[in-house]
Amino acid sequence: MIRLRLSLELDYEVFDPGCDFIFNIHAAHTNRQRVIEESLTLNQNVATQVETDPATLNRYLRLSARPGPLHVAYQATVDLSHYMALAEQIPEVPVARLPAQVLSYIYPSRYCQSDRLLKFAMREFGQQWHGYGRVQGIRDWVLQHTRFTQNTSDSNTSAIDTLLETVGVCRDFAHLMIALCRAMNIPARFTTGIDYGANPALGPTDFHAYVEAYLGDRWYMFDPSGTAIPMGFVRFGTGRDAADVAFATIFGSVISSAPRISIEAVPGADGQLIMPRHCIEALSTDN
Amino acid sequence: MIRLRLSLELDYEVFDPGCDFIFNIHAAHTNRQRVIEESLTLNQNVATQVETDPATLNRYLRLSARPGPLHVAYQATVDLSHYMALAEQIPEVPVARLPAQVLSYIYPSRYCQSDRLLKFAMREFGQQWHGYGRVQGIRDWVLQHTRFTQNTSDSNTSAIDTLLETVGVCRDFAHLMIALCRAMNIPARFTTGIDYGANPALGPTDFHAYVEAYLGDRWYMFDPSGTAIPMGFVRFGTGRDAADVAFATIFGSVISSAPRISIEAVPGADGQLIMPRHCIEALSTDN
Amino acid sequence: MIRLRLSLELDYEVFDPGCDFIFNIHAAHTNRQRVIEESLTLNQNVATQVETDPATLNRYLRLSARPGPLHVAYQATVDLSHYMALAEQIPEVPVARLPAQVLSYIYPSRYCQSDRLLKFAMREFGQQWHGYGRVQGIRDWVLQHTRFTQNTSDSNTSAIDTLLETVGVCRDFAHLMIALCRAMNIPARFTTGIDYGANPALGPTDFHAYVEAYLGDRWYMFDPSGTAIPMGFVRFGTGRDAADVAFATIFGSVISSAPRISIEAVPGADGQLIMPRHCIEALSTDN
Amino acid sequence: MIRLRLSLELDYEVFDPGCDFIFNIHAAHTNRQRVIEESLTLNQNVATQVETDPATLNRYLRLSARPGPLHVAYQATVDLSHYMALAEQIPEVPVARLPAQVLSYIYPSRYCQSDRLLKFAMREFGQQWHGYGRVQGIRDWVLQHTRFTQNTSDSNTSAIDTLLETVGVCRDFAHLMIALCRAMNIPARFTTGIDYGANPALGPTDFHAYVEAYLGDRWYMFDPSGTAIPMGFVRFGTGRDAADVAFATIFGSVISSAPRISIEAVPGADGQLIMPRHCIEALSTDN
Repeated sequence: MIRLRLSLELDYEVFDPGCDFIFNIHAAHTNRQRVIEESLTLNQNVATQVETDPATLNRYLRLSARPGPLHVAYQATVDLSHYMALAEQIPEVPVARLPAQVLSYIYPSRYCQSDRLLKFAMREFGQQWHGYGRVQGIRDWVLQHTRFTQNTSDSNTSAIDTLLETVGVCRDFAHLMIALCRAMNIPARFTTGIDYGANPALGPTDFHAYVEAYLGDRWYMFDPSGTAIPMGFVRFGTGRDAADVAFATIFGSVISSAPRISIEAVPGADGQLIMPRHCIEALSTDN
Repeated sequence: MIRLRLSLELDYEVFDPGCDFIFNIHAAHTNRQRVIEESLTLNQNVATQVETDPATLNRYLRLSARPGPLHVAYQATVDLSHYMALAEQIPEVPVARLPAQVLSYIYPSRYCQSDRLLKFAMREFGQQWHGYGRVQGIRDWVLQHTRFTQNTSDSNTSAIDTLLETVGVCRDFAHLMIALCRAMNIPARFTTGIDYGANPALGPTDFHAYVEAYLGDRWYMFDPSGTAIPMGFVRFGTGRDAADVAFATIFGSVISSAPRISIEAVPGADGQLIMPRHCIEALSTDN
Repeated sequence: MIRLRLSLELDYEVFDPGCDFIFNIHAAHTNRQRVIEESLTLNQNVATQVETDPATLNRYLRLSARPGPLHVAYQATVDLSHYMALAEQIPEVPVARLPAQVLSYIYPSRYCQSDRLLKFAMREFGQQWHGYGRVQGIRDWVLQHTRFTQNTSDSNTSAIDTLLETVGVCRDFAHLMIALCRAMNIPARFTTGIDYGANPALGPTDFHAYVEAYLGDRWYMFDPSGTAIPMGFVRFGTGRDAADVAFATIFGSVISSAPRISIEAVPGADGQLIMPRHCIEALSTDN
Repeated sequence: MIRLRLSLELDYEVFDPGCDFIFNIHAAHTNRQRVIEESLTLNQNVATQVETDPATLNRYLRLSARPGPLHVAYQATVDLSHYMALAEQIPEVPVARLPAQVLSYIYPSRYCQSDRLLKFAMREFGQQWHGYGRVQGIRDWVLQHTRFTQNTSDSNTSAIDTLLETVGVCRDFAHLMIALCRAMNIPARFTTGIDYGANPALGPTDFHAYVEAYLGDRWYMFDPSGTAIPMGFVRFGTGRDAADVAFATIFGSVISSAPRISIEAVPGADGQLIMPRHCIEALSTDN
């Protein structure tokens, strides 16, 4: 069991006549990701509402901010009890046996146009063993064919753009990996958290986007941009692609400041400090 | 209450080594759409499984067909008890108050790139009353700016293509209407059924795609291609767009024949025959 | 006759191992645009070559710069003797009678996908008189449907993007107008110069992109972004779209500074100062 | 010297009120492609005009057909005196030394968006020798990564679509090869003719599209779809891409029949019959 303490601070200057926000910055509750303690602080005295979507377990914080500064601070302590498995023992699931609620994750989405990559993916990955190793192979291929480069992509950039232009940030790596998985009928989804373990030379701690693929009987984590340590990922939101899981969706005029984020391993209930580390086993925090 | 009897016959020639199918041809169960009786017949003696996705209520029939002819026949009798409301009394729902499970329907999807149409939609529809009438206005705009034309679109055609090329079939009309609604933060989804009431001159009875928009406290039906009578729509599937709700998703090699479909109003439990008709009230069969 | 004096200063920091440049910053020579005097100054002692493309009359300056600072200064005095005509007397040219060298300007190009806008353009402009007035109508439509906004487009932005997103800079206005003209079989090309007469509030004098359409027996100028005074346009380059007529094409690594540009009317050979002004007549400097 | 005799027959049913045509079905005149004899026959008694574009040498036949059947027959005898060179002796031309009239062929065009493939091409081809062999390498890569498949592409299909979907016809192979060449700053153009030597099993003799790349001091021919024998290519048109060189551009309503085409080698002026054959030398008919 790994215990992580994380904190987020978000700052906005809200213009007249105020602004609606939907945040997805609360750690999700799953059997393997337990929120031991959390708190939310606002500088404005406005009503807030936190709702959980039953299909994804995403927790949405909603509020209507008044004009002026808005400061949102969230901090949580989260225990992760990873499900770990040997990669070579995890098969893909034939389409005929995918659970109904997983099915939609083999279909194309706004930024993951898997329908256009069927032949491309088949050529590259069609001959590999149909299991965790193939998904790992797709992840490695994306990492090898894409260069992590800031300011080369924007909110309109899709998996196809990234395949062609061979540059991007974590969001783009994730979209490309997802599109290639779905093209092989492997359910894949876009998941958000914090880039635990990222090299500080790349900048301050930031939000992160990674991939979960459905294999065997659960969702396993993959980090196609290779910048962070998956064992330290605390899941905020999951969805079809970035269209579903912005950390903040803003309906009105604001100026945003860069978020300030921290995450660190802390001693668990038993007083032991266990640090997330790179490992070769497959990891899941889904259930 | 309207009672409809519908029947579908689907025929495939399945090649070696067989083929997995996911069908979405079962009438959904909702409080206002009750399946009184239904039957499914296959010519092949293979296991079938019908599962309901809790988030959408879509019912998925799955089977692994053997090589050779596959004949699938579904028939059902369905009672519709429409929720009817006066258009001018149905407001839009501010984003801050949308239910969590509706939220994902304001985000862009594979074929409905609403994120690229924000300014376009604002220019056309920004000044209208924020209610049912605005959605009806979007529906009318789509109908006026698009010509129903067979064989001008394919499985890659998106809302943006339809906006530019101004032609398409019911699927394309629906995608464009959905994209424009979402661009105005109005939740909209893609729904499939049968084109009840379509002009026989347009060809035999066929599957149909239409739109549901979330207004007030429920999903209301709209028929942007204007080819059918919404009061006669029996819902099969609903989703983000056509990527989610094909009537058949096929994993293997087959030759498909044209489906044979019929739907007709029949006398209800009380012996009365009530025919679907065009009406000016807003209609919902969602719950 | 209008006499204009213009000067350009371009600055680059060239990295190892040097860099090839193709500039298109020389005023074109036409019967109605005469270069009275011009000079080119470089800080590097490298060979330069100026070649004129016979098809477009574009003048290309080429050089291989060494590492270090590169300063390029061009200044010229140019006499414009506009061909002026009454708009209502200028017809479109039926395709059957277009000169061979004009034909390619009715075909789609990288940023002007007119082939995708045939029906859209026909709906908007099909019923208008087939003459200068229709092209002016297209220009006005583009101006009304697009908002001049810095930093909303990039080198990948095409006419279709601009139509959808309804924002852009002069390059984007020009691409959209060209695409709509070609969709009506009206030859249109992309032309570059300086934004004579632009409001200083919009920033320092800059390069400009505008449109020429072939009507009657020549190319007439249109300024779809409406930011400048066409009578003051000195043509540098013309081509199918921005892909053909960058003011600088750079093959190597450099850092560019913002160009410094000036243009002003000066007294002509007869000592008279004639200022460019907005006018309702059609204007051409082509031949 | 190779002598070829070719004939084309095109049939249309022209609707009211008639229709303008621009054909590009005349063999081009170059120093190495000499038209010994040619004839054009129409069933309608309408004026025809054949014009040569000085920049491309394309010959455009234009006419205004009346309603009713239109039959166009063209036949020609053409002598080809190929320029042949050893592949390993042909270098690429540094951008700084490309002739002005060749420059536009390094820029992106409607169907060849080379600007989006710079990094992709650099990764695949950046390390190869900068000469004919690299272009041949690009040609081979396209052939290996694309499957010749009828009815998978349409008039909207671009190089990027072909790269993603990995299928197409000769037009698509040519667009992809051109885009990759231009991404490496190698001038490349789209050229049309007849598929001399194509396997009859693929269907009747048809129009063909291939590629010319500018290397050394001239344009060399490449056949990326690998279906025909380049030594038997008689050039009709050349341009930026398929947007420029349709064999027929039609302004009005018609029904088209499949063209009937034949081409065969015949004895030359000296009575000798020399057959086009596959060869390893580089071939040019440009000048």
